[in-house]
Order: sequence, then structure tokens, then C-alpha cells
Amino acid sequence: MSEGIEIVPDAGVTAPRGFLAGAVRAGIRPDSEKLDLGLLRSEAPCTAAAVYTSNRVRAAPLIVTEKHLADGRAQAVIACSGCANAATGERGLRDAVEMARLAAAKLGVDPYDVVVASTGVIGTFLPMERVSQGVERVELAPPNGGLAFAQAIMTTDTRPKQVAARFGEYTLGGVAKGAGMIHPDMATMLSFLTTDAQVAQPLLAAALREAVDASFNMIDVDSDTSTNDMVVVLANGLAGGEPIEEGGTPAPIFRVALTEVCTRLAREIVADAEGGTKVIEAGVTGAASPADARRAAREVVRSLAVKTAVYGRDPNWGRILAAVGNSGCQMSEERTAVWLVSPDGGDLCLFRAGSPQAYAEAEAKACLAPREVRIRVDLGLGTASAVAWGSDLTEDYVRLNSLYTT
Amino acid sequence: MSEGIEIVPDAGVTAPRGFLAGAVRAGIRPDSEKLDLGLLRSEAPCTAAAVYTSNRVRAAPLIVTEKHLADGRAQAVIACSGCANAATGERGLRDAVEMARLAAAKLGVDPYDVVVASTGVIGTFLPMERVSQGVERVELAPPNGGLAFAQAIMTTDTRPKQVAARFGEYTLGGVAKGAGMIHPDMATMLSFLTTDAQVAQPLLAAALREAVDASFNMIDVDSDTSTNDMVVVLANGLAGGEPIEEGGTPAPIFRVALTEVCTRLAREIVADAEGGTKVIEAGVTGAASPADARRAAREVVRSLAVKTAVYGRDPNWGRILAAVGNSGCQMSEERTAVWLVSPDGGDLCLFRAGSPQAYAEAEAKACLAPREVRIRVDLGLGTASAVAWGSDLTEDYVRLNSLYTT
Repeated sequence: MSEGIEIVPDAGVTAPRGFLAGAVRAGIRPDSEKLDLGLLRSEAPCTAAAVYTSNRVRAAPLIVTEKHLADGRAQAVIACSGCANAATGERGLRDAVEMARLAAAKLGVDPYDVVVASTGVIGTFLPMERVSQGVERVELAPPNGGLAFAQAIMTTDTRPKQVAARFGEYTLGGVAKGAGMIHPDMATMLSFLTTDAQVAQPLLAAALREAVDASFNMIDVDSDTSTNDMVVVLANGLAGGEPIEEGGTPAPIFRVALTEVCTRLAREIVADAEGGTKVIEAGVTGAASPADARRAAREVVRSLAVKTAVYGRDPNWGRILAAVGNSGCQMSEERTAVWLVSPDGGDLCLFRAGSPQAYAEAEAKACLAPREVRIRVDLGLGTASAVAWGSDLTEDYVRLNSLYTT
Repeated sequence: MSEGIEIVPDAGVTAPRGFLAGAVRAGIRPDSEKLDLGLLRSEAPCTAAAVYTSNRVRAAPLIVTEKHLADGRAQAVIACSGCANAATGERGLRDAVEMARLAAAKLGVDPYDVVVASTGVIGTFLPMERVSQGVERVELAPPNGGLAFAQAIMTTDTRPKQVAARFGEYTLGGVAKGAGMIHPDMATMLSFLTTDAQVAQPLLAAALREAVDASFNMIDVDSDTSTNDMVVVLANGLAGGEPIEEGGTPAPIFRVALTEVCTRLAREIVADAEGGTKVIEAGVTGAASPADARRAAREVVRSLAVKTAVYGRDPNWGRILAAVGNSGCQMSEERTAVWLVSPDGGDLCLFRAGSPQAYAEAEAKACLAPREVRIRVDLGLGTASAVAWGSDLTEDYVRLNSLYTT
């Protein structure tokens, strides 16, 4: 935990001042009993920023949201699960615009200040009648509205994911969903972040990009990026005080808090990965460049070889070394070292200076026993470092992703 | 099958004139009963070319082979399975050099004309005493020597993989191994190709690069590239005739034959993928560039979403579209079309012009029933095309890769 930042237990997007949320079961998938439509509203207009999927196929709600956020302002979010409204052409776009209109009418805000998000099956149309009736029935209820909103965006997630943190006079809240990038019921990683700090839009955008790069962009469940991935931050300024701007005193702590909240949510996604039993943390140091460090760390947690070895508690460092070699990062076998971190915090060296190291098999297996498995790689070339998180790969992942049909 | 090329049944690297091979069980892994050490020899010196792994971690035998092939000549191959001799430092290099020396002494060729290959566990040293005794015992026996050689390089492969083809006066033979890029017992994809055509080295190198790009570089089992991957071609000229050179009459048919043999071997690898039940063929047309076509085709067969959907016979075209979008190729949703190819050869359109297409679920499932499943994507942007092959992803893959430890 970073200095000056305090986690608020059991809180999320409604922890900051002036944010209310609520959700209903609209019946977007008639076969599901869960909450599937959520609204989030700020009392005051917000500065806003977002990061979107890099997939060339972009879902309708994402296209609409991008337009609405072009002016760096927003005041509300409407999100639904069960249907991604992706690959739905003109009709999908009209439906996403209509979702914004319905939310705006219900919440008394400008439709252009509404963020629209959907998650679920690709290539099906939204049942707009049910969406419309659902919006009517939502009650914005403090303080449980945030949790209801978190539940409404879940698909194959087994639990809601929310975090809130205090820094100085300010509070920052966040909610996320995601368990695989790819399940038919789960075509999306979504996250919404709220704060009562007043943050200048350029700083908000830069801080969000930085936070996402260190968190959501450093996790891997199955290497697939969806058509709907979206992270949005809203800052309403209701905590008062001077605006936080680039170069101002509170800017660094705001950046750190945003990265901290995003990292916690990202790890929650990995911990809830489809079929996953473990979180693999790969820390890479000594890289020649930050890009190399990120590449190597991500490839270690992406490699199916590493994922299956960790699942099987096999201290197969050759797979880790081969993943680093496969990442495209600058490396020399002779300068590379690989460790497992033991549950008591000590390091067990498996490979160093071009040679396998002698180690006790039992000790290595003990490092792979916890629910969080930590791998360290030093490239011995420079000073750049990065950390990535991934799930293991299990028979249950295959089962979940092959047996359920859309 | 391309015109002018005829497949020779049940034949491999010893089908061309002047190539002999043989294998023994050297006991490189004492727990295995299989053949694990093979020798291949040409009567006459050969022009030679090779393509190596792009992994930055390069196994010792690969480093030695690259040196020996620097002059574009070779006359023999020594290959063993059970130990990859990778991540083994100076000692590993000495062992690989010693393998070449042992083979050269046995076969009466120059040590610098010996190709050295190993496949198996990373990070263990070769039992050189057993390798040495094994080399002594190999008998080069026509015509079954080629099959024995194919068996000797198998690790988790369930069957030997060999192909031979005739074109004009010439014969071309090939052997390959590979079932996953990553298994602890299987750190390698290897292929050796032989021909009695006399081929100028520059053409041989160019034709091999082209053949590998269209075959071994277009397959995916688990997206991992190993430390030992190597494809080598030897041309001994014993069929007589003029040398085949760039621009000469037989050059085009030689290139086509080499690509054909490599493609058949590559498909054999996919068909024998660890835990795999199906071969997925993705054909992409209408791409803006050849690189884009390759990227899109490979991402479709790489995507765990697509692999698990095919395994589960789920006609989930949204996953195919998202994989294309994820590949980085230039694309527009509105111009993209996705089909499944039905067993009778007809096409079933699932997505076109930005919209889901109506289709009968039963018909789509029928397309996913065969052992070979064919997906077609047209990007509607240009004239470039590519084909890639991948295995499906099953619970057995996870089991094989998590339960076996080194």
C-alpha cells in the first residue's frame, strides 16, 4: 500500500461524495435471474476520461461513449450485461444512443453526458423494450447502490469487484467486471472509476492512461482483447478545494491512488479468472527498457506453458525462460536469472549465469502451493522493471469455454 | 495437390537417392523405451539451408548447427530426443560439438558437415556416455531407416510424421516432430528435408524460407515458440541433371514441392497436437496486404476463444470476428464476412455487411463436426490471402501440460 492512501472496506463507485447508483433485473437474458442493468449518476457534471479496447471490432456502446466523452465531460453511466451489442451494425448504434437517451431522461442529465456500456453475447440485439422498462424501475439507493451496480455488470464473474480508497480530502471508487476476455457471455472487461476530487481533464486522461498501463494492460487470462473493453473515470469535484492539475501538489498522490485502485481491480479480475485456481505474478527487473520489461512480464503470464505448469505445481523454469525468450525483449541467457518467491518471502533461484541452479524440489513446489504464485526474472541488462498478473490454465477453463454455447 | 507433384506413400527422408538413416534406443531418458537417437547420412556432400527459432533463448545444438551450415554445406544429421540440451551453458555447447564429432567419426564425414539437433527437457545435460554408445550401435538401414529416424525424434508425438513427393526426375523427403511447442518433454519443433535434386544454395535458402513461412509458421498449437525449433533441408544432387537455380525451369516446381511437403508435415503436427481433437483451418481472403492476411489467419487459429468454441462445436462467429479484430490487421466490420465450410464443401455465411446472418443452428454445428474444421474470412479490402492451421484446446491439453513434471 502506498503512503497516504487508505483503502475503504466494502465500498466502490458510490464512496466518493455525490455519486449514486442502482440496478435492476431488466431480463436482458430471460434465462438469467441476476441484476443486469445499472445506472450511476453524479450530482454535479464531471470531467471524464476513458481508455478503449484496441480491438478493431468496436461495439456500438463504445462508439457512442467515445463521442459523448469527446468534450471530456460526463455525468452518468448506463451499463447492462447479457448482450454486448457488438457486431450489430446500424441498429446496434441506434440502440446504444437510445440507452443514453433513456438514462438521461430518467436521471435528468444531458444525453451527451451519458456513458453507455454493454457486456455479453456478441452479435445479438438488445431487447430495447426490456431495457426501457428496466431503466424506469432503477432506484438510486445509497449506500448499496454501488454494490448493485457492480453486480449488474457481472457476466461469468463469480463475484462483484469493487474498491475504494481515500487520499487526503478525497475519495476514489472503482468497479470492474471481467473473468475471461472471451466467453460468449463475457465479451468485455469494463471498469468505472469515480472521484470527488476536482481534476483537470488533461491530468485525468494522462493519469488514467498511466494507471491502465500498469494494471488492466498487465493482466492476462486468455490473451484475447474484446470488442467492448472500456475503462472510464469521472471526477465531480464535490470534495471542494483547488482543481488538481498537472504539476500541482496533489497530482502525484492522485496518480498513485488511481493506479492503486486500478491495480486492485485488475488483480481481482485475474483472481476470478474463468476456471482459474491461482494468480501468477511475474516481476521483471534489469530490463534494457520499460517496454522490454512489460513485454517479458506479460509473456510469462500469457504463456500456456507457464500457466499449466503453475496449475500443476511444476517448477519448470525452462518454460519461464523460454517465455521470456519468446517475448521479443532484449535478453542474454548468460545474464538472465529466474526465481520463485517462497511463501515466507525468500527467493529460490532456479537459473542464473546460463546454468540451472541446484534446488530442493520440495522447496520449489512449496513456492507454487499458495493461491498467489510469484515469479521473478532479472534480465541483467538495465534498470527497467514491470509487473504482470495472470491466471493459471485449468481443465475448468476449457470446460467453461467449450460447453456453453450462445 | 499441385500439378506435377506426386506423393510417395509411406516414405520420408530416405526416399530420395543416396540418403540412409537409422536409429537406436540410447537411453537418454532411462524411463523411456523408445528410439531416441537417429543418424541421417547422404552419400554425397549436400547444399544445405536452415530456418531457426525466433526465441532469444537458443539451444546449444542450434548454435552449433548454425555454425556448421554457415558455408551452405552439410552431409549428415544427428538428432536425439529426451533432452533439449537448452539452457545448459558452456557444457551444453561442448556436448553438442561432441555429438557432431561422434556422428562424423561413425559416418566418415567432416564434423563441420554435421547438423546437430536435440529435443526434450530444457535445463538438463545430455548423458554423453549413452549418446556415444548409442552412436556406435546405429545401423543405417534402407528402407526402414527413415521411419526409425522419424520415431527417434518423437517426444509427446503420438505418431511419426514423414512425407515424400516426386516431381519430375526428383524426389523430396521430409520428417518432422512436434505436438506442442512447450511440453517439458517437447521443447522443439524439428523438421529435416532431403532431396536428390541438385539445388543451388541461394535458391535452396530462399525456397526453404518461403516454404516455412507458408507451413510451419502458419500453425499454432499453443503460441509458444521453443528454444530448439529448426528446419533443415539437404540437397545432394544424386538424381543428376543440371543444377536447379533461381530463374531456371525446374525452380518453380521445386519451390512448390518443398512448400507442399512442409505444409503436409505442418498439418501433421497440428493433427497430433497435445490433447487436440480437431484441425482448424482458417483461410483469410481480401486482405489489404499479405502480412495482414497472415496476421488475421494466425490469430483466428491462436485464439483460445476460437479453439475452445470449435472443441465445443459452438458456431460462435463473434469469437472469430473478435480474433480478426484483435490481430492488428486492417479491417472494417462492415466489409468483413465470416463463413464456416460445410462437410459437403458449401459455405455457410454467419456474418456479413456488419450484421449477423440468419442460419440454421444444426447446419452450423454440422460444419464443426468433422475432424477438419474450416473457417473462411473475407476482409473485403484487397487481394491478399493466407491460410493457417491450429489445433483445438481441450481439457486433455491442460492435463498433459500440468500433470507431467520434469
